Amino acid sequence: MDHGAPELSALEPWVYEPLLALALREDIGSGDLTTEALISPEARLEGVFVAKGSGRIAGLEVAAHVFRRLDPGVRTEPLVQDGADVDAGTPLMRVRGRGRALLSGERVALNLLMRLSGIATATRDVVRLVQDLPVKIADTRKTMPLLRALDKYAVRVGGGVNHRFGLYDAVLIKDNHIAAVGSIREAVRRARRRAGYLIPIEVEIERLEDVEEALEAGVTAILLDNMPLPMLREAVRIVNRRAITEASGGITPQNVRAVAETGVDVISLGWLTHSVRAMDISFELE
Amino acid sequence: MDHGAPELSALEPWVYEPLLALALREDIGSGDLTTEALISPEARLEGVFVAKGSGRIAGLEVAAHVFRRLDPGVRTEPLVQDGADVDAGTPLMRVRGRGRALLSGERVALNLLMRLSGIATATRDVVRLVQDLPVKIADTRKTMPLLRALDKYAVRVGGGVNHRFGLYDAVLIKDNHIAAVGSIREAVRRARRRAGYLIPIEVEIERLEDVEEALEAGVTAILLDNMPLPMLREAVRIVNRRAITEASGGITPQNVRAVAETGVDVISLGWLTHSVRAMDISFELE
Amino acid sequence: MDHGAPELSALEPWVYEPLLALALREDIGSGDLTTEALISPEARLEGVFVAKGSGRIAGLEVAAHVFRRLDPGVRTEPLVQDGADVDAGTPLMRVRGRGRALLSGERVALNLLMRLSGIATATRDVVRLVQDLPVKIADTRKTMPLLRALDKYAVRVGGGVNHRFGLYDAVLIKDNHIAAVGSIREAVRRARRRAGYLIPIEVEIERLEDVEEALEAGVTAILLDNMPLPMLREAVRIVNRRAITEASGGITPQNVRAVAETGVDVISLGWLTHSVRAMDISFELE
Amino acid sequence: MDHGAPELSALEPWVYEPLLALALREDIGSGDLTTEALISPEARLEGVFVAKGSGRIAGLEVAAHVFRRLDPGVRTEPLVQDGADVDAGTPLMRVRGRGRALLSGERVALNLLMRLSGIATATRDVVRLVQDLPVKIADTRKTMPLLRALDKYAVRVGGGVNHRFGLYDAVLIKDNHIAAVGSIREAVRRARRRAGYLIPIEVEIERLEDVEEALEAGVTAILLDNMPLPMLREAVRIVNRRAITEASGGITPQNVRAVAETGVDVISLGWLTHSVRAMDISFELE
Amino acid sequence: MDHGAPELSALEPWVYEPLLALALREDIGSGDLTTEALISPEARLEGVFVAKGSGRIAGLEVAAHVFRRLDPGVRTEPLVQDGADVDAGTPLMRVRGRGRALLSGERVALNLLMRLSGIATATRDVVRLVQDLPVKIADTRKTMPLLRALDKYAVRVGGGVNHRFGLYDAVLIKDNHIAAVGSIREAVRRARRRAGYLIPIEVEIERLEDVEEALEAGVTAILLDNMPLPMLREAVRIVNRRAITEASGGITPQNVRAVAETGVDVISLGWLTHSVRAMDISFELE
Amino acid sequence: MDHGAPELSALEPWVYEPLLALALREDIGSGDLTTEALISPEARLEGVFVAKGSGRIAGLEVAAHVFRRLDPGVRTEPLVQDGADVDAGTPLMRVRGRGRALLSGERVALNLLMRLSGIATATRDVVRLVQDLPVKIADTRKTMPLLRALDKYAVRVGGGVNHRFGLYDAVLIKDNHIAAVGSIREAVRRARRRAGYLIPIEVEIERLEDVEEALEAGVTAILLDNMPLPMLREAVRIVNRRAITEASGGITPQNVRAVAETGVDVISLGWLTHSVRAMDISFELE
Repeated sequence: MDHGAPELSALEPWVYEPLLALALREDIGSGDLTTEALISPEARLEGVFVAKGSGRIAGLEVAAHVFRRLDPGVRTEPLVQDGADVDAGTPLMRVRGRGRALLSGERVALNLLMRLSGIATATRDVVRLVQDLPVKIADTRKTMPLLRALDKYAVRVGGGVNHRFGLYDAVLIKDNHIAAVGSIREAVRRARRRAGYLIPIEVEIERLEDVEEALEAGVTAILLDNMPLPMLREAVRIVNRRAITEASGGITPQNVRAVAETGVDVISLGWLTHSVRAMDISFELE
Repeated sequence: MDHGAPELSALEPWVYEPLLALALREDIGSGDLTTEALISPEARLEGVFVAKGSGRIAGLEVAAHVFRRLDPGVRTEPLVQDGADVDAGTPLMRVRGRGRALLSGERVALNLLMRLSGIATATRDVVRLVQDLPVKIADTRKTMPLLRALDKYAVRVGGGVNHRFGLYDAVLIKDNHIAAVGSIREAVRRARRRAGYLIPIEVEIERLEDVEEALEAGVTAILLDNMPLPMLREAVRIVNRRAITEASGGITPQNVRAVAETGVDVISLGWLTHSVRAMDISFELE
Repeated sequence: MDHGAPELSALEPWVYEPLLALALREDIGSGDLTTEALISPEARLEGVFVAKGSGRIAGLEVAAHVFRRLDPGVRTEPLVQDGADVDAGTPLMRVRGRGRALLSGERVALNLLMRLSGIATATRDVVRLVQDLPVKIADTRKTMPLLRALDKYAVRVGGGVNHRFGLYDAVLIKDNHIAAVGSIREAVRRARRRAGYLIPIEVEIERLEDVEEALEAGVTAILLDNMPLPMLREAVRIVNRRAITEASGGITPQNVRAVAETGVDVISLGWLTHSVRAMDISFELE
Repeated sequence: MDHGAPELSALEPWVYEPLLALALREDIGSGDLTTEALISPEARLEGVFVAKGSGRIAGLEVAAHVFRRLDPGVRTEPLVQDGADVDAGTPLMRVRGRGRALLSGERVALNLLMRLSGIATATRDVVRLVQDLPVKIADTRKTMPLLRALDKYAVRVGGGVNHRFGLYDAVLIKDNHIAAVGSIREAVRRARRRAGYLIPIEVEIERLEDVEEALEAGVTAILLDNMPLPMLREAVRIVNRRAITEASGGITPQNVRAVAETGVDVISLGWLTHSVRAMDISFELE
Repeated sequence: MDHGAPELSALEPWVYEPLLALALREDIGSGDLTTEALISPEARLEGVFVAKGSGRIAGLEVAAHVFRRLDPGVRTEPLVQDGADVDAGTPLMRVRGRGRALLSGERVALNLLMRLSGIATATRDVVRLVQDLPVKIADTRKTMPLLRALDKYAVRVGGGVNHRFGLYDAVLIKDNHIAAVGSIREAVRRARRRAGYLIPIEVEIERLEDVEEALEAGVTAILLDNMPLPMLREAVRIVNRRAITEASGGITPQNVRAVAETGVDVISLGWLTHSVRAMDISFELE
Repeated sequence: MDHGAPELSALEPWVYEPLLALALREDIGSGDLTTEALISPEARLEGVFVAKGSGRIAGLEVAAHVFRRLDPGVRTEPLVQDGADVDAGTPLMRVRGRGRALLSGERVALNLLMRLSGIATATRDVVRLVQDLPVKIADTRKTMPLLRALDKYAVRVGGGVNHRFGLYDAVLIKDNHIAAVGSIREAVRRARRRAGYLIPIEVEIERLEDVEEALEAGVTAILLDNMPLPMLREAVRIVNRRAITEASGGITPQNVRAVAETGVDVISLGWLTHSVRAMDISFELE
């Protein structure tokens, strides 16, 4: 499995523009007091994003778009591409335009670029731990409000794959759902009726006895949450490629390889997006 | 300095309601396929938030409000208060109401509660390192979009204090601003003209020679960014309480005490909010 | 296949509330001149929705919610359920509350209820034509702006199934996509990379020679658009249940049975939602 | 009465832009998976809208604007104008620009263009049935949410005229309003007080005895709903041009001429917009 | 003409609720620092609006709704009604509820109530100057953003009447429009085509020679802007009740009676809403 | 103190663009009937804003932006700058572009420009009355919804200074707050805890005995509301420059000089923005 940058398909701005508008309104509010007071409306500036640590870059186009929202005349010149692995000191993107746009947008641009690169870097690091195994590293819905599309993009940049985007694009049946309708079979039948014939259906399995019922019900994937390794291995054996197997719960860089070696198809990790260590990046005006 | 919970003043929901509306729309989109298929509109459920690790809790009322937005009839019963330091296993809040509201809102509520408690915990831990010194631990504008009011609330719950909320409620003059207008004095004069007579003005000082000019210009605070400890100590001595002194840049739990001992009034830490380690919390249905 | 109403899972209002708010603002604008002039704010009225023609009802809860938005004190009493097949003259739902809310909301409620019942009725009628065959009748994305979730709900009420909800929850690869990347195999591989491991991938096939390549690439479904019946039959034979087969294009009540008899799994019909004949329903005040 | 295209005044985009933004967000959601995966951000495409059936075209500029919202650089070249009567096979408008914008916007553009052309065609057809008579064909408020301005534009393109746009730009007094205040005279007096001295006031008349009271009260128009032809004829005679007479209720292409021959000034038809048969149009990429 | 309060029909909150939401967000922003710090979330307060000067009250229900938005549990008890003429010291409305809602909403409520009462008072005063004459005092579109529906309501409370609400509910043809199409007749014909058969059409006349052409074209009203009194009188004579005559431009309390005595039907005054003198009202907590 | 225009820092449009969008939607609604009917989409016009009275101009860039929102191709040429004192007849700004944009945007542009220039003029006039004294003239939160940033800009253009922008950027403690927590000292302590270490804290003092307690608590400013002149003078003497002193309440052009002579630092005037007399300005098409 090759997760390299060349295949990356950049997001279109229309997906994240509402987020940028809200983020800028939150930060600028009734006006950027400092910039309006000290920088002439006509002044032009040039700045460059520079990595202050090492990691994998994600979000350059998003950062560029922050400035464009404030001034459509801003020009950006990426010096690396999303997916690049860089060291401290690497210049990432040059930005030229009205000084007020650069100064008022800088913080929002950096906050996003640092987070997304942090996610890409963490994902890359865990993907590398299992890269010789036929397993995929996936994200979850544990993202921050309005950042889901961007967070999940960063996971892809890091070489990971995306689990469902929301409650709307896949069914995930857990034990209390099953309890509510009486059986896995009935739960899958009703979910299929509501979700349409294309939408994937995943069922969380707590006991190995239930695997066969889920497979017969026609599920797309089976979630094996917080299972001990031997049980995980046995579940994979029973499923025998008739559905996608996904392991989750308490998986860390320390134990990810052992989990992968059980043969599961996918390992999903909430901390990729809920506990992000931002990559250190600065915006230096020249 | 006592940072205890009793003085905490909870946020009013009108500040964060737009965020909750957007977060729920992001997650639910065209419908929660699983819940709509499997849970009767009339079914009632009860669940409880439970700490899975130890830390300081922040955001219970925010989490409660997520459910109320989906169903005004949801009732919540906090079992601890924001600011409580809890161990793994502690039940935090009981929630009763329509099962669909609980299941469709669970993830958004958890994502926010886990983040805010993570921020409060990290802040508490660093505050404890310097609690016998007359220094305050402050946050920055390095927060995620739309989360600023909540992130900064969590910092207060952790015993920290808030730096400015945005570009609109304080002036922060940096070197390129000074370069643009020629002198610190002139920069402060113009900023005062724009910002009104109440708004605080902070100036970033890179050389000790500039401290006196800033004080004479009448600044509220002086930012000492990335200064070596001896220089920091000297700056504090020169200022001599005529303005608030703030240290920032590269300060970690390892060196925070040394920085505090220079006598600065405030230490501001970007990582409190840009690199959050979410506290592990689950929502258990009964 | 039983498409009866008992299994219907009503939509939650949080999905369509933004639509109702916008629709009411569009109609009421700067004020309902007639109602404000002639009806006292305190006056209470009672009205009942009555079918003026025969058909299958869909959208009662949506109509009820229109009034609740204007006055949370409005009470509604459904006299039939969504999915009921009614004749002209059947009373459908009773509404009691502030007269102004009933009069100002009536038109928006009726416009939605009449459209959704029209869709459910048309779907029911075509489903009945093939109900003894193992085929499903599906909708498309040919819906009106902001009505997709409701239109697709009405299709389910009519006994149909839902195709993808938007560009975000399934991949549909057409010939120009294939041309852009060179082969079906490569197109599927890239789509899988972007879409995650759960999202369904459908490929439109124009020549029988391509079926095998699509199946080997691992597609979820194969779209057979505007194919003559013999070719359709042959395609179904080649696929041999290794993927879902979908026929579309120019299918009418007249030829739907012949198409179904080719053995395709799904027949999708754009006119179910793009050319709706509204069911005649009135709102009668008492 | 000449309803030809030359007098058509195109809508300005600022009226319908919010609708386009919402429609695109509904369809694209968290991203157009197929297009982002398979089409390079730089790829340029060209496409053309082509009529697949015959009818009167309305909405070309609206369709053009859908693409411009996604990419301001898209260029459109109309090959016919709104109001043109075309046959199957007629190319309607050429579109050039970023391929992603064309592919992601295509469905929304078609959905609107097909609906508006369907409305214009149906209106044209009924207008033609009475074109030698001094009667106007009007629409109603039975439009889909957020589409009112566009639906009513399409009616004008079809040669029809517009009834009120909403509850805000004309008063329409019905029997329950009259009952609430005691008399037609009093109802008109109060409505005039609320609505200002310019706004038109229409009264629905159920009995011929009430016509004179309405005229004396100074109404702009009289609505004759669901009246038998002889009664309609008598009402027109009594009014004697002192107000506009409008017939509505159960009027179809079959009986519209008979209704027109009663001498009413206006015939309003709800089905022009509530039961639209979309014109068949495709967007063909080259 | 009786402009008394008993006929006033209060606005429904759904018209002005978006304004209140935006106004509160503007004022509260990231939080009401004072109230959150000092008032317990549970504390309950009671306050009363009191007139500090004399005038006619308008907007009590709007002010009440400001508090309800912050806390649905707030209870308000009006002590006078909109339209009441009060002296300094008169208590206007009692408000009880959560103290935080009262303190955070007070300013927005007062700003609106003071403006609307100021408009009602100024309108009342000018209406009184001509109350024995058959003339109406009207407003214009010179209102503040988002306040039009409320400003025009206040004019009605003051005994005035409303001119058009926006560019959408009446046609007003000025000299440059006439120049653009060649003649008054042609301008009216085209406007009628666009606007529908109900919408009023007003033409601004600069020369008496044009009056007859306008009347023949079938206009609803004739605007006589900035005309000397004798010319105004002559215009009224020529029109001879075949259309509504409206005088505007430079009319003040000093000359309004002279203008009214020319026999015009309506006098419209921009300063009623563009130069409002707020009525002095306070909100006193108990 | 020199309040001249050269130091004025123009607002950036991103602060007021949402207001312009809403104002235009309010006025244009479902379409500008007159302009769409009579002005060709391609027609180009030129117009000029002209002062019809004398005063200080504020808001030219805001007015220019109204037109740009409707047509990005509109070009504006300011003939004077904000802050200029002009006489009747002075041309202010030339505007060229699509005629529809000019005609549909004219009223919104004028409404804003006339209000802002009215505020700037009134502020200038009162500032001149005390310009030889070391006192500042300040505004309040008595502004119209959504206009606060613009109203406060106009006050600066008039030579005034800004008090706090909202409830979020400064603390203002009044008597009922003090009563709620028991003492000024405690109120300031809690406010500081909530507001952060930078935010200014002002306390309203009703008795001279409280001045010292406020100063010891470390307040930034002391509000002296509705105090008789001798008491005001005594308060200023006691404060002795240890905090900013602000007088408010019942201050008019007649008594402002007497108040200023008490030595207060700031005089705040609600009527600058709550009772605006719009400057008379017209937009003349050529």
